[in-house]
Amino acid sequence: MKINSFSIIGGDKRQLAAANAILLDGCAAFISGFDRIKLEEAENISVAEAAIYSEVIILPLPVSKDSETLNAPFSSEKIKLDDDFARLMQGKKVFCGMKDRLLKTSKLWNSNNVYDYFEREEFAVFNAVPTAEGAIEIAMKEYPGTIQGSRCLITGYGRIAKILASMLKGIGANVTVAARKKGDLAYASSFGYQAVDINKMMECGHFDIVFNTVPALIFDARMLAHLCEEAIVIDLASAPGGVDIDSAKRLDIQVIQALSLPGKAAPKRAGEIIKDTIYNMLEEDNE
Amino acid sequence: MKINSFSIIGGDKRQLAAANAILLDGCAAFISGFDRIKLEEAENISVAEAAIYSEVIILPLPVSKDSETLNAPFSSEKIKLDDDFARLMQGKKVFCGMKDRLLKTSKLWNSNNVYDYFEREEFAVFNAVPTAEGAIEIAMKEYPGTIQGSRCLITGYGRIAKILASMLKGIGANVTVAARKKGDLAYASSFGYQAVDINKMMECGHFDIVFNTVPALIFDARMLAHLCEEAIVIDLASAPGGVDIDSAKRLDIQVIQALSLPGKAAPKRAGEIIKDTIYNMLEEDNE
Amino acid sequence: MKINSFSIIGGDKRQLAAANAILLDGCAAFISGFDRIKLEEAENISVAEAAIYSEVIILPLPVSKDSETLNAPFSSEKIKLDDDFARLMQGKKVFCGMKDRLLKTSKLWNSNNVYDYFEREEFAVFNAVPTAEGAIEIAMKEYPGTIQGSRCLITGYGRIAKILASMLKGIGANVTVAARKKGDLAYASSFGYQAVDINKMMECGHFDIVFNTVPALIFDARMLAHLCEEAIVIDLASAPGGVDIDSAKRLDIQVIQALSLPGKAAPKRAGEIIKDTIYNMLEEDNE
Amino acid sequence: MKINSFSIIGGDKRQLAAANAILLDGCAAFISGFDRIKLEEAENISVAEAAIYSEVIILPLPVSKDSETLNAPFSSEKIKLDDDFARLMQGKKVFCGMKDRLLKTSKLWNSNNVYDYFEREEFAVFNAVPTAEGAIEIAMKEYPGTIQGSRCLITGYGRIAKILASMLKGIGANVTVAARKKGDLAYASSFGYQAVDINKMMECGHFDIVFNTVPALIFDARMLAHLCEEAIVIDLASAPGGVDIDSAKRLDIQVIQALSLPGKAAPKRAGEIIKDTIYNMLEEDNE
Repeated sequence: MKINSFSIIGGDKRQLAAANAILLDGCAAFISGFDRIKLEEAENISVAEAAIYSEVIILPLPVSKDSETLNAPFSSEKIKLDDDFARLMQGKKVFCGMKDRLLKTSKLWNSNNVYDYFEREEFAVFNAVPTAEGAIEIAMKEYPGTIQGSRCLITGYGRIAKILASMLKGIGANVTVAARKKGDLAYASSFGYQAVDINKMMECGHFDIVFNTVPALIFDARMLAHLCEEAIVIDLASAPGGVDIDSAKRLDIQVIQALSLPGKAAPKRAGEIIKDTIYNMLEEDNE
Repeated sequence: MKINSFSIIGGDKRQLAAANAILLDGCAAFISGFDRIKLEEAENISVAEAAIYSEVIILPLPVSKDSETLNAPFSSEKIKLDDDFARLMQGKKVFCGMKDRLLKTSKLWNSNNVYDYFEREEFAVFNAVPTAEGAIEIAMKEYPGTIQGSRCLITGYGRIAKILASMLKGIGANVTVAARKKGDLAYASSFGYQAVDINKMMECGHFDIVFNTVPALIFDARMLAHLCEEAIVIDLASAPGGVDIDSAKRLDIQVIQALSLPGKAAPKRAGEIIKDTIYNMLEEDNE
Repeated sequence: MKINSFSIIGGDKRQLAAANAILLDGCAAFISGFDRIKLEEAENISVAEAAIYSEVIILPLPVSKDSETLNAPFSSEKIKLDDDFARLMQGKKVFCGMKDRLLKTSKLWNSNNVYDYFEREEFAVFNAVPTAEGAIEIAMKEYPGTIQGSRCLITGYGRIAKILASMLKGIGANVTVAARKKGDLAYASSFGYQAVDINKMMECGHFDIVFNTVPALIFDARMLAHLCEEAIVIDLASAPGGVDIDSAKRLDIQVIQALSLPGKAAPKRAGEIIKDTIYNMLEEDNE
Repeated sequence: MKINSFSIIGGDKRQLAAANAILLDGCAAFISGFDRIKLEEAENISVAEAAIYSEVIILPLPVSKDSETLNAPFSSEKIKLDDDFARLMQGKKVFCGMKDRLLKTSKLWNSNNVYDYFEREEFAVFNAVPTAEGAIEIAMKEYPGTIQGSRCLITGYGRIAKILASMLKGIGANVTVAARKKGDLAYASSFGYQAVDINKMMECGHFDIVFNTVPALIFDARMLAHLCEEAIVIDLASAPGGVDIDSAKRLDIQVIQALSLPGKAAPKRAGEIIKDTIYNMLEEDNE
């Protein structure tokens, strides 16, 4: 890969961390859309300049929240996503998260040159690590006992659950994985977790800490009633989450909704993951 | 599940272990096709009797090697797979491995009643455990150093590789996983292994023990030349395996072809896995 | 052990947690010296009452900070340690931490009936778990990357270091243990950590997170200069700790002094440990 | 350390492996007492020559079995330990195992120049690794189930037990440690094993595989009667071991006495350990 100049336009601290990681690799990184924050390693420049200086443009995740302007919380002005913006990017390799939102903002976009790092499997897998660590940090903070020796329930067995289960076991927790597929349960028990059908998980005794990764209402009033009062539920599933919050309040069960953990728990690593994923995509593109 | 009587017809010691596991659950298990071996827990009966006594028939894996007779190495007589055999089984739930071979032997088979446990995901996952342990046992036997501290390379990142990597790390080996997919590599590095593109694995330094799980000629003469002479290659990929045996001989590299490890390394567990998988299928069938 | 009534007099929330743990075992627990806090499970009674009701008296750790009054931060009045106090306790089994301070307060104490749980090996070992978890929680909070994949240095290889190293590795960190004794280094490398003589640890490359457990000035200006600016130092050694704080400030290295972690990170568990240790002592006393 | 020439005199394949490890470090290694075996890396020379060529002499472990001749199974002639032998070694640094046996063979020995590597803590710790692996290899070979998921009991919590417990857990076994000291039990449970007082271990349910490391008759007839018939007992304690063999036979319980595992399971590593320990001693000697 011969590209040695990247422009990071918009986004939050994760994008800055990505810029930093690129600089540490000895490549140039131009930054735009960050005039409201003090930058250490680079100067904030205009979008037009940023577009000119680099072959590769890195836009945020999601690229837009309103489908009209760039997701750029550290920019004092709105950056419109329109034909002008698209024209500036012509001929560039443009990387972003949720690229459909970008493509809809102008007919000038050539979808062949727009890449979505959020769709990449390795992006999701890598981010499962800071997510799992963020979840463990919350558990350590909130649970008055030790994780070591505690009874942890993880619902679901996707990427986050796999990494989380491994880490919790690594600290010494007793880990139960509740999933639906027999193959997942076979994996879970082969890795040394107690594996249980998600429909029967409440027959498995008591749990101290529950980590939900399933984006469906798993913990309804009936299920919550099976938890002991002291249990802590950490909901990692994207909104609306997997817990009936009202019932939990009524039952006095502590529920912590933990979203976007990579950027919060490990912003530096979150930036590296964006960079690594884009490098992978550039490499494959060159093959 | 209300079924409480099973007939095991044909197969090797794994099937006997399955019969045993069923008996330990408090169910009845009838055995046929084992007249050449001394049975402890049950008497060998005829196929016809076995068929009458049970609703559920368990045939071996593979059900047949020649597509004409039952795979029954411990039977002194050949057991023909024909219309007569199929007629005996009518109305029964028949479980076997590689059911296509069975269905072809008679038009009387009703494919709705014939189940293939070999196709089940959990069967494959569970069997990865005795396979991994068998591979480690071989490594311990053949490698003159300790696994702890050794440099192990695993090619591929399927079921066996995942379990094997976890166990080797659990003993203290330095584990490198060589795979093709970026998502697999992300998982491997997230679980603490060195992860490397399979095309670049020989640039990663030396390895003491190589475990191949990829059923393709990964270790050709060129690749083998990169291994040091003392390296041991344990080939877990099904025939023809992943190693150029002739070149390995010429280079004086020890290659161990290790197939059908579950039945060899852990026959008791291999039988339990057959039983557990069939129980799962019966349960789903009843739902 | 037939004792079924305990009086907990003085101390902080750990002692309350111990009282709670005793109640959960189905024994009676009387509480004194906690009139400034709202109790859920029991009523605060006078020291005299508490002394009468129970054969076993549990005093705090340390039993006194000033060698004159009981360490009782939740009591609105000072509880004097004098002949009167000692007389109330006559004939009882009295458990406390740092019993020498208690024995000096009155000649009436019979040292045979005063037990020191702080001196017990299992007390120290059990407390290493919440200490290690507290240290990891701090690392997760302060370090902007993930612990997984980070380079962690642990100085010393005592109780805390052993548990901490195991947990960090369980999360996926690259752990280096720096110690002096060759036997300790042999253990550390046998458990899969990089082991290095403490005098040569700075030749081992860079570290992201440093955990000091050695109560001696290991990290003086010279040693600190070898750390990279982004390194975080978590000092677990009791005061004055193992880090030259002034030099660290000058070098802009973040140092977190983390003391008394069990009570902070896992008060519930800290109380259980006091209870478990006292049970062990009572059991041995009865043998 | 400036020494670059070593003479290895007598011993078994472990000593040859030590010689090999020294050669791989780029030092010279002379070999004597191995005329009955084909050597690859060096020529067998006489004891007198070997003594002349090197400042450091490495004798076997134990240095002698009969207290009269060198322990040299691969020498066709007996090598007498007498004044002549001692005179040859004068002024040299002589390393051996169980040096008392050597010192008694001649008054010419200067005990200041004779070093015992067998007494070193790191020697014992390092050898616990091949011992544990050898024990696991035996368990894998003999136990018809998988180690993963099996119930393993380890009696004692010394060096071998600590490493063995960690490895068994790393493979996925359910590990119970039975020990006497409360501090050891606290460690064992903190590392995630079930910990039980050795006097109550048989109340803990059934075990599939028992590893004894205690050199005392732990498994007498009464204790053996508590094991299930299918249990396997692997006795790692030095002779006479910890199992009443006669009772075990009567109860039809399989007992495997496994001694001197490092040399058998990992001869190459066993040699490296001798070398590493001697290097440590030379280094300390030079300080």
